[in-house]
Amino acid sequence: MDAQVKPIAWYKSLALPGNRREYGYFLIEGKRAVDQALEYRRGSVEELLCTDEAASSMTLPDDIPVRTISDVNMKSICTSKTPQGIAALARIPADVYTSKIPERSILGDKILLLEHIQDPGNVGTLIRTAAAFGVNGVILSGQCADPFSPKAVQSTAGSLLSVWIRKSAQYLLMVDELRNQGYKLLGADLDGSESFNFEGVDQHILALGNEGSGLTNDILDRCDCRIRIPIVESGAESLNVASSGAICMFMLRRR
Amino acid sequence: MDAQVKPIAWYKSLALPGNRREYGYFLIEGKRAVDQALEYRRGSVEELLCTDEAASSMTLPDDIPVRTISDVNMKSICTSKTPQGIAALARIPADVYTSKIPERSILGDKILLLEHIQDPGNVGTLIRTAAAFGVNGVILSGQCADPFSPKAVQSTAGSLLSVWIRKSAQYLLMVDELRNQGYKLLGADLDGSESFNFEGVDQHILALGNEGSGLTNDILDRCDCRIRIPIVESGAESLNVASSGAICMFMLRRR
Repeated sequence: MDAQVKPIAWYKSLALPGNRREYGYFLIEGKRAVDQALEYRRGSVEELLCTDEAASSMTLPDDIPVRTISDVNMKSICTSKTPQGIAALARIPADVYTSKIPERSILGDKILLLEHIQDPGNVGTLIRTAAAFGVNGVILSGQCADPFSPKAVQSTAGSLLSVWIRKSAQYLLMVDELRNQGYKLLGADLDGSESFNFEGVDQHILALGNEGSGLTNDILDRCDCRIRIPIVESGAESLNVASSGAICMFMLRRR
Repeated sequence: MDAQVKPIAWYKSLALPGNRREYGYFLIEGKRAVDQALEYRRGSVEELLCTDEAASSMTLPDDIPVRTISDVNMKSICTSKTPQGIAALARIPADVYTSKIPERSILGDKILLLEHIQDPGNVGTLIRTAAAFGVNGVILSGQCADPFSPKAVQSTAGSLLSVWIRKSAQYLLMVDELRNQGYKLLGADLDGSESFNFEGVDQHILALGNEGSGLTNDILDRCDCRIRIPIVESGAESLNVASSGAICMFMLRRR
């Protein structure tokens, strides 16, 4: 970004995926999410946008440029109904939209794979849960909702920058390469077994599938283990994918 | 409902909470949710609304009145972007908006309490999870999002009628009465203990609090046990309430 003051329309344009990818920036809306981004991933935040009222009621950092804008402008750049007068402009990390395996020092042992998950709220909630349970990174298939969209970012509650992210149509290549490196592939599957015995599973990828149709055969055929969460037949047909994912990540961390 | 054909505007008016309470009806949108309502709670469904296209592509039941409406009318009564050409008109069960304890035969041993949960998606997802894990009923504080709102109904994925529901400002009276009957009150709380040892807890109420502020002291002071789900400090500040709830209900069922 150059040092020029950006027009309000530029921030607003970040609501569209093509613009986010072209410019390499996204917006974090709301006090809590901005606070958390500043606490854990300060380096990625380039600018704070504040209304007069918000600026006078909170302590702002002195090492990040703060721009005061009107209430009307704040509402026009934010998509949430209650932006609370503050937003942060943050850089989308490098390599997000590639299938490049991160270097060993940040790769980690726990990876989450989201295949064709279409609801941005589910994508964001799953990233938040992953961050909470010490998962190191999240791979998303090309058809997933974009994790840097306003609704997804809001659902991550500020934790989006706590994990590495890849979103690529080539996600199966990443899975194959990681399996070659010794990662076990675990898939949440209504036809799986009910065992939560993860002995011998150290490095792993937990795969969660589309809200309606679950994991594709491309993933199921590669799975070292398929996990089924037992539910009551007459109650509900299935769990929400973010709920299933939370239970699996909790159990994988707990053992 | 009388036998007269209702104007389209009447169905549309059910998007507002006051109209739902006055008329005692709500809409279930989309094929999957309608299918599930017909499978498990057929008696509550009074009428199916269908577009011509949907009517010709699916098998419709012959014991429930079906009304064919235009695409435009379907879009105008549904709030989801993809209503899939089908919606069901269903009765809101009696006593939902009261603090009446259900009779023993339907009360059951497992109850979920939602206190001031504001997002209708969270309310709906938690009801879906409760139904999936054999929870018998859900009590909502008066300040919770309405479980019969279009967004909440959509998030329950058709399982809304599988559990009994109460939504009342007098929810604390219900809690006190149930505790007098021997129910243990378990609260999900960031300051609780990390134990998931539920020995001796048979009849119970699991309480989940507001997205931002958690449970009130009114509930915390009554809790027999406070449960904390251990998370990584540097990852995320907390879990989404529907994710926490899924983990607690899974663990309570698993023991």
